[in-house]
Amino acid sequence: MPMSIDDIEPRQAAGAESEVLLVERDGGIATLTLNRPKARNALSEDLLDALSHALLRVEAHRDVSVVVLAGAPPAFCAGHDLREMNEARNSLDRGRAAFERLFTKCSNVMQQIVHLRQPVIAAVDGIATAAGCQLVASCDMAVAGDQARFATPGVNIGLFCSTPMVALTRNVPRKHAMEMLLTGEMVGAEKAERLGLVNRVVPSGTALAAATDLARQVAAKSPLVLRIGKEAFYEQLEMPLSEAYRHTARVMTENMLARDAEEGIGAFIEKREARWTGE
Amino acid sequence: MPMSIDDIEPRQAAGAESEVLLVERDGGIATLTLNRPKARNALSEDLLDALSHALLRVEAHRDVSVVVLAGAPPAFCAGHDLREMNEARNSLDRGRAAFERLFTKCSNVMQQIVHLRQPVIAAVDGIATAAGCQLVASCDMAVAGDQARFATPGVNIGLFCSTPMVALTRNVPRKHAMEMLLTGEMVGAEKAERLGLVNRVVPSGTALAAATDLARQVAAKSPLVLRIGKEAFYEQLEMPLSEAYRHTARVMTENMLARDAEEGIGAFIEKREARWTGE
Amino acid sequence: MPMSIDDIEPRQAAGAESEVLLVERDGGIATLTLNRPKARNALSEDLLDALSHALLRVEAHRDVSVVVLAGAPPAFCAGHDLREMNEARNSLDRGRAAFERLFTKCSNVMQQIVHLRQPVIAAVDGIATAAGCQLVASCDMAVAGDQARFATPGVNIGLFCSTPMVALTRNVPRKHAMEMLLTGEMVGAEKAERLGLVNRVVPSGTALAAATDLARQVAAKSPLVLRIGKEAFYEQLEMPLSEAYRHTARVMTENMLARDAEEGIGAFIEKREARWTGE
Repeated sequence: MPMSIDDIEPRQAAGAESEVLLVERDGGIATLTLNRPKARNALSEDLLDALSHALLRVEAHRDVSVVVLAGAPPAFCAGHDLREMNEARNSLDRGRAAFERLFTKCSNVMQQIVHLRQPVIAAVDGIATAAGCQLVASCDMAVAGDQARFATPGVNIGLFCSTPMVALTRNVPRKHAMEMLLTGEMVGAEKAERLGLVNRVVPSGTALAAATDLARQVAAKSPLVLRIGKEAFYEQLEMPLSEAYRHTARVMTENMLARDAEEGIGAFIEKREARWTGE
Repeated sequence: MPMSIDDIEPRQAAGAESEVLLVERDGGIATLTLNRPKARNALSEDLLDALSHALLRVEAHRDVSVVVLAGAPPAFCAGHDLREMNEARNSLDRGRAAFERLFTKCSNVMQQIVHLRQPVIAAVDGIATAAGCQLVASCDMAVAGDQARFATPGVNIGLFCSTPMVALTRNVPRKHAMEMLLTGEMVGAEKAERLGLVNRVVPSGTALAAATDLARQVAAKSPLVLRIGKEAFYEQLEMPLSEAYRHTARVMTENMLARDAEEGIGAFIEKREARWTGE
Repeated sequence: MPMSIDDIEPRQAAGAESEVLLVERDGGIATLTLNRPKARNALSEDLLDALSHALLRVEAHRDVSVVVLAGAPPAFCAGHDLREMNEARNSLDRGRAAFERLFTKCSNVMQQIVHLRQPVIAAVDGIATAAGCQLVASCDMAVAGDQARFATPGVNIGLFCSTPMVALTRNVPRKHAMEMLLTGEMVGAEKAERLGLVNRVVPSGTALAAATDLARQVAAKSPLVLRIGKEAFYEQLEMPLSEAYRHTARVMTENMLARDAEEGIGAFIEKREARWTGE
């Protein structure tokens, strides 16, 4: 029995207007919207917790095939919440434990996106900076409005974007990543596309619609096959060539024996539409 | 004594028209042509065997410096032969052993290209999909006609292009590779060039001629030096920086002591043409 | 006590006109200029020694935040000194020990640039070939004049550019790197930018000025933070994703506890200029 959309709403905050993360489902697509617009959707610990929680629920939801990640306008996400971070300095250890917990939590959320069984598509209008830029880089695909801007500006405030760099350098050629990290300068959407940080650029304000269209296209595939493929994608990337081939040859053999491959190949040969069961 | 061109023809099939792979040699260039045009040069097991066999013979042929890999028009290669694969489902193990053998064989041919002592250049006119796209990605260089199209569409038939992904992700930036794999959409030649999947785009129908020109340019170098360089290229890519430098410093020292380096550097200083002996 | 600019001049050669490397400091920026213009700034052993020595002194100089690396016009650097190399062939071991020493020394200088605590920016006007191209690839960023040209042409003289390849393939997509290495052909500045080998292209003859502008922008950051970031950049690149995140989360925690982060974040919140102490 499919769960209703209510089942994947995030933990309830005091009132609707204080929900830091909005979660909606439309068919096979779940849309997560960072919802701290006044703080340019900065990743407070509350928001990181809500995001982690929502990803766990989305992962478990059998009817969700694809996830779209957006920000409440006008920003996508401005990174960490500096005021919140600075408050931790008043503790006895000058904040060490709090900082360690925060950066670990944030890194874990980024890796949750990478390891999520569903593909995640970032819909970026406005700015995506520091951990916000890292969110984009951590998603499997990204669509950006033509006024979107990207930066890793930590160097300007004495805090190098070291964890965002992990995701950034796995998307963008080395010298360009270094330039973003050392100068902190904004990069426009078209350059971000050229650098490999986003897949496509659309008119400003339409990133969410375009990401949803792309999500719909992907959601028409077998969710089992999406999971098999996404998992193998990141696994094989970290292997030497021969090991990557050994691993993926096994993955494809298992995939061939799944019901959805038999159905899909049969439908192709018989020139009819395939009907996925996700098995 | 140089072998004649006949020496590197593939194993004989029943008749000329049933040869699934054509092998020709012109000077230092061997051209392998996938020759199942009605099946869009799909990689049947026969064709994979013929390709593997031809690569072994080319490797052993001392007068071949460069290999060009093409498809009999109008396609380059449409990937695996789905009908042949589906037939294996009738066996007791539902095809498991057959699928495993097929994917392993295919992965081995791809790695044979990577490890071949001669550079291999793909000449792509028409479509290069699934394992056909992987063939292009596995070659050292690729030239494409401007109407060539590339895709990893397995996701559309319930079989994620997991082994093609190994080669694709080692050519194309991560998010663009993911888009090809998750959507199965065709990518045109110009975008393929921009993504790093092909080196250059030429007018439609001239990919083979352009690849052969490029091959001729490379075939003018010392075959020994091409072998040293190609081998070290893929070895050092999988090493950390310091190990890569230790390894290649040794490789260059050996290279300097080879006769062709002495000849080449001498010719350069004396402003005359070098004469390679491949030693 | 800050050292004067004289403190980072290279070891004195017989006379000013015979200095193979010029070292200047202007504020936080040290500029190293390869100065063998008649030999197109080829990396003789003397020049490699001078470069290594200067990098050691720059590293120890507390007032240097950024390094610019340039060549005395009209070339940037034409690679190794072939005449010098060939002379070693007359020794009993046919040069083996000398070649090994040379390639190891050269590889060590390249890695010194990568491991230097300060960012290094290449300013490229004219040609950058073989180990000269490798120098560009080894720098953290690079600015090129629009007439600059890049190549790894060793294959033309029987000596494959195996050590330059290590740096090149960590900047440039695989097939394009292979093309440069197998054909030895020159690549223009605009293509080099597109391939990721340089960050930006400027009018011919202004590369040094533009690189110095970029250096000035970077030198305005905390030198401590630049060091933290640059070191973590190359470390995390060689780690699997989860390890990279564990490492950089620790790096960011330490960074947060540094005085310059407290100052920088405080200044940002208070909307005033930060004053770095490098601690």
